[in-house]
Amino acid sequence: MISGSFIDEFGFRYSMTKLIVCLTGMPGAGKSTIAEGLKPKGYDIVNMGNAVREEAKKRNLEPSRSNLGKLMLELREKNGPGAIAELIKPQIESSSSNVILIDGVRSNDEIEVLRKIGNVKLLAIHASTDTRFDFLQKRGRSDDPQTKEHFEERDNRELGVGISNSIALSDYAISNIGLTKDELIESANEIIQSWVL
Amino acid sequence: MISGSFIDEFGFRYSMTKLIVCLTGMPGAGKSTIAEGLKPKGYDIVNMGNAVREEAKKRNLEPSRSNLGKLMLELREKNGPGAIAELIKPQIESSSSNVILIDGVRSNDEIEVLRKIGNVKLLAIHASTDTRFDFLQKRGRSDDPQTKEHFEERDNRELGVGISNSIALSDYAISNIGLTKDELIESANEIIQSWVL
Repeated sequence: MISGSFIDEFGFRYSMTKLIVCLTGMPGAGKSTIAEGLKPKGYDIVNMGNAVREEAKKRNLEPSRSNLGKLMLELREKNGPGAIAELIKPQIESSSSNVILIDGVRSNDEIEVLRKIGNVKLLAIHASTDTRFDFLQKRGRSDDPQTKEHFEERDNRELGVGISNSIALSDYAISNIGLTKDELIESANEIIQSWVL
Repeated sequence: MISGSFIDEFGFRYSMTKLIVCLTGMPGAGKSTIAEGLKPKGYDIVNMGNAVREEAKKRNLEPSRSNLGKLMLELREKNGPGAIAELIKPQIESSSSNVILIDGVRSNDEIEVLRKIGNVKLLAIHASTDTRFDFLQKRGRSDDPQTKEHFEERDNRELGVGISNSIALSDYAISNIGLTKDELIESANEIIQSWVL
């Protein structure tokens, strides 16, 4: 466990354990929108996908959908099912923030890695398949699927590593249907604040 | 597809396809509360668990947690992963209601069986692990887990047949935290009504 400590005005020492909030959900459900929107609140944001993109860069790989998919599977094969969480451990450990948001947790194995370094809470974001497909087409990040076929392939890859179990066993689920961007961000913030206290 | 038809005042014939709403979610999330609460609204309710209990009765088996679990696995092994949905097909086909609620859908294979006989929508109910355990302890149905060990065993059995995929790919997810029983039932009703229209 990472923990800091402080001494109060009466000389008592208190220890603090980092709160690690894992955002989980199918591709396009709204995880990154929440993470981006909550940056100004002072939380540290760690993006699991970016960690894989960084790793691809180090290996001189184009950050294409298929390259990133292959790299993710390769890392898991080599370093175990919690491999992507291992990639971000140093970033969490060196963070000065007491609340860290992890964008894009994909399996219970990754969560187990994080439980060793802090108090983990799981926040699931849900949206229907049609809503997610529309959103990803509009976003068009280098690895975002633009056809229904690639979309289903991406969904199946995520389901294959166990993302749905982390959704089913989450501490809270937000339904991202009929919410404005600001409402989505604010409802996530309220839940996270209830965990801090 | 089951469908009826009617002729309007101008002599045009319209066909109607049954709406099959599958309630999905981990044990204790609130599926049966919704199903029971919506009975008076005129929906037909089909309980997948009861279908298994009926089958146990036919075979002179006590409806204990372990017997029902074993029977479910046995039926799937014998008749394929959609076996429990096959059990309820006659009940759906003979229903006179245009909206049928299925309580306790556990896998995409079951959903595929239902898609052949109607227009299927998936409504997921989510609650945290602690909330679900508390609820099941209070309910105490013959097969409800009373210890944390049995609770986890039950969760894992459901995850093992793929329930989390049907949650992740659902059309709508209700978060059953901080809602009264009536609010939970009403929010489910609103969503179902939006699918009927």
